[in-house]
Amino acid sequence: MTLTPVSDALEAELRAALPVAAFRELTPAYLEEPRGRYAGGGGLLVAPASVDEVSVVVRAANAHRVGIVPYGGGTGLVGGQVAPNGPSPIILSVERMKAVRSVHPLENVMIVEAGAILADVQAVAEESGRLFPLSLASEGSARIGGLLATNAGGVNVLRYGNARDLCLGLEAVLPDGTIWNGLSRLRKDNTGYDLRNLLIGSEGSLGIITAATLKLVPRPVGVGAALMVVEGPEAALDLLALAGERIGSGVSAFELMHRQGLDFLAEKVPEVRQPFDEAPEWTVLVDVGLPAGLDPAAALEGLFEAALEDGLVSDGVIAQSEQQRHDFWSVREHIPEANRRIGSVSSHDISVPIGAIPEFIARGGPALAEIGEFRVNCFGHVGDGNLHYNVFPMPGKSRADHENQREAIKRCVHDLVHAMGGSVSAEHGIGRLKVADLERYGDPAKLAAMGAIKGALDPNGVMNPGVILPV
Amino acid sequence: MTLTPVSDALEAELRAALPVAAFRELTPAYLEEPRGRYAGGGGLLVAPASVDEVSVVVRAANAHRVGIVPYGGGTGLVGGQVAPNGPSPIILSVERMKAVRSVHPLENVMIVEAGAILADVQAVAEESGRLFPLSLASEGSARIGGLLATNAGGVNVLRYGNARDLCLGLEAVLPDGTIWNGLSRLRKDNTGYDLRNLLIGSEGSLGIITAATLKLVPRPVGVGAALMVVEGPEAALDLLALAGERIGSGVSAFELMHRQGLDFLAEKVPEVRQPFDEAPEWTVLVDVGLPAGLDPAAALEGLFEAALEDGLVSDGVIAQSEQQRHDFWSVREHIPEANRRIGSVSSHDISVPIGAIPEFIARGGPALAEIGEFRVNCFGHVGDGNLHYNVFPMPGKSRADHENQREAIKRCVHDLVHAMGGSVSAEHGIGRLKVADLERYGDPAKLAAMGAIKGALDPNGVMNPGVILPV
Repeated sequence: MTLTPVSDALEAELRAALPVAAFRELTPAYLEEPRGRYAGGGGLLVAPASVDEVSVVVRAANAHRVGIVPYGGGTGLVGGQVAPNGPSPIILSVERMKAVRSVHPLENVMIVEAGAILADVQAVAEESGRLFPLSLASEGSARIGGLLATNAGGVNVLRYGNARDLCLGLEAVLPDGTIWNGLSRLRKDNTGYDLRNLLIGSEGSLGIITAATLKLVPRPVGVGAALMVVEGPEAALDLLALAGERIGSGVSAFELMHRQGLDFLAEKVPEVRQPFDEAPEWTVLVDVGLPAGLDPAAALEGLFEAALEDGLVSDGVIAQSEQQRHDFWSVREHIPEANRRIGSVSSHDISVPIGAIPEFIARGGPALAEIGEFRVNCFGHVGDGNLHYNVFPMPGKSRADHENQREAIKRCVHDLVHAMGGSVSAEHGIGRLKVADLERYGDPAKLAAMGAIKGALDPNGVMNPGVILPV
Repeated sequence: MTLTPVSDALEAELRAALPVAAFRELTPAYLEEPRGRYAGGGGLLVAPASVDEVSVVVRAANAHRVGIVPYGGGTGLVGGQVAPNGPSPIILSVERMKAVRSVHPLENVMIVEAGAILADVQAVAEESGRLFPLSLASEGSARIGGLLATNAGGVNVLRYGNARDLCLGLEAVLPDGTIWNGLSRLRKDNTGYDLRNLLIGSEGSLGIITAATLKLVPRPVGVGAALMVVEGPEAALDLLALAGERIGSGVSAFELMHRQGLDFLAEKVPEVRQPFDEAPEWTVLVDVGLPAGLDPAAALEGLFEAALEDGLVSDGVIAQSEQQRHDFWSVREHIPEANRRIGSVSSHDISVPIGAIPEFIARGGPALAEIGEFRVNCFGHVGDGNLHYNVFPMPGKSRADHENQREAIKRCVHDLVHAMGGSVSAEHGIGRLKVADLERYGDPAKLAAMGAIKGALDPNGVMNPGVILPV
């Protein structure tokens, strides 16, 4: 299964089969990823305009034993979109396939192509009086194909699920170039193996998603948000349970922030207005979306008072306007940017069982202290058990000062996560960054099954080589 | 990949490896299925008490090239639980593995073994102040392993999804006998291919589910139900959309019933009290579960009044007590029993895109009339696009009178469903009953991928042979 570099012969074959518009200049953007860890080594960029054209490319690449690296919005954080080594591949960008094929408001369904940008999809849903609830920091550039290929998460998973939960069907090109037409609009369809969920989360290693049927939901009639100060992660979890009991599925997001993040924000993104004069050690952002007849601010007020009575919160502020709600979210959403400007030594997208969060946080700090002195910014989707646990140098130090400790830090965090039944990749995926982690922590039976499936569907190993499974 | 019948040698090997309690008498119940279409031809019944014992059985059967038929509650409607022909297999019952391993109310999670009965799981969830929302007619005997293997649906899919949406992780024995320990309690875990969803819905043909992590949800604070008379399926869909806009995700179930079902009920199950003096042609059962602060009866009253104003409903009755809500559901839930007593010529578990339901119903009657004169009882989960479209003889005739038309009826209904982008198995699965339908209507690329996956994970073809894919 040795791959060969893309050749003049293959390029000529593709140029003969596809319109000239399918060929674009391979600018550096296609060979980079956001954190600068990987740089692609070149290749032939092809941007097909239809599933048939994708099929032509895949079939030819497979016949020539040339690797294919699918490229969406380029926002992935685990290097799935760039191949830094190996024979130069075809880079297949879905940027020209961004049509909204149809919207079915009555069915809460829309069908879009893989290149559609998330923010655009959200806007089309809104125009139809519906909500497409997938929401994450990179929504202005992330594309649907990549979001599904990586089973993206984000801030509304607590209520609406991950990307896979928001997809009813797929159109995809399989590694041999055949087209699977699975753009079902059905809510129930028990006809055979779940190929949809197999492709979702396979990060382009089993085929290329070209279009998807997306689930929409009714827009909540009233939305609201509050920031509440909790004593610690344990109180945050009790507050989450209380919110569930009082507001049920109306809780859309439940985000935890540590003072470290607010301090970074004050230092690096001072234009973001912070709601508390003095940054609390632990803050929770609760967001709700409620049906007619319920007032979001009143519901949050009631939650806050009950939580105060239970000793779970010590302070809080409830958004009195959409602008204020937006301001609260702005705090949360700018933390990654503040982190980037500080420069982490090591970043971890991890999850543990929700009930284990307090213990994980309590053990994480002391475990890291055995390696060295660091600042930890722990924040994230606590309602999903998903923490972004990022490790930073102390003031006056830089990430370069800790270069030789990065591996130890990662091992320390991941070992702890694994010991607690957690995941070393909660929402970002494996990509190329965590292939060794998956081999280390993955269940052997699952890994063997994955290898067998990859071998069965992509015997030549052309689809996104080096992603998820080692080449 | 020719299978061999279970032999004395294999039985001796298993008896040496397993406690005597694992061997039970193969009573006729294990060789039957509810509609009497299949009768198993015998085999060796083994009821392991642990995943390790399941592994021993599967490993040995695989080595001897003996088929394994997994057996849960025996309630499946497509013959997945009985092997009517082929070399006699091992029948592997999970009936002795019914422990609730743990409950985590704070996380909305419980871990149960495959033999746990659905009603028992629901009860344990309720004791913990939570809801396990999977609910269907056979919940008193269906077991979790089978419910997941078939991706069961039921009445709450509209709100909470199918069985696969209610599962966070699995423990399973793969065809070679290896144990996959995937009992994750994580809400987000993007570490490799989605083996969980591949096994869910594979009907025992890729492995045996031995335990599962189930998702619980907060119990709605207030529940209510109403029966509303609509002019037809189109009005029912408009009512569904209106309910979504007004009550949002508070709509738990939305069931459509045709007069034919109410007439059958009056004739065959007269003890069920019917709410209307004269059976309406089309009735909708709306069930809601709301958070604190909203009164279910008032919400349904508001919905009814708005629908009246829009001309969508002509009559209705709102449950004023839990007893009355129960009575409403009793009407819906006894329709299958009434059907059974009448005796259908042909039953169809189909789904179409929700928006296509009116057209499907409008075209179905005339299409069948070209075959002969029948009574059609069309009812089901209209909120999911899932109809049970069952065809009955006219009064004075019996199903035997139409034996030679059954195939034509099935073909007529399935062709229409397929032409409208629907599924010939919405929630029951393929089993052995619909293998030919899947070959006829399935997407060729998907079928090829399914075959490749089956071949890769079960090269000897021992797991539930003849289910989903032809032997």
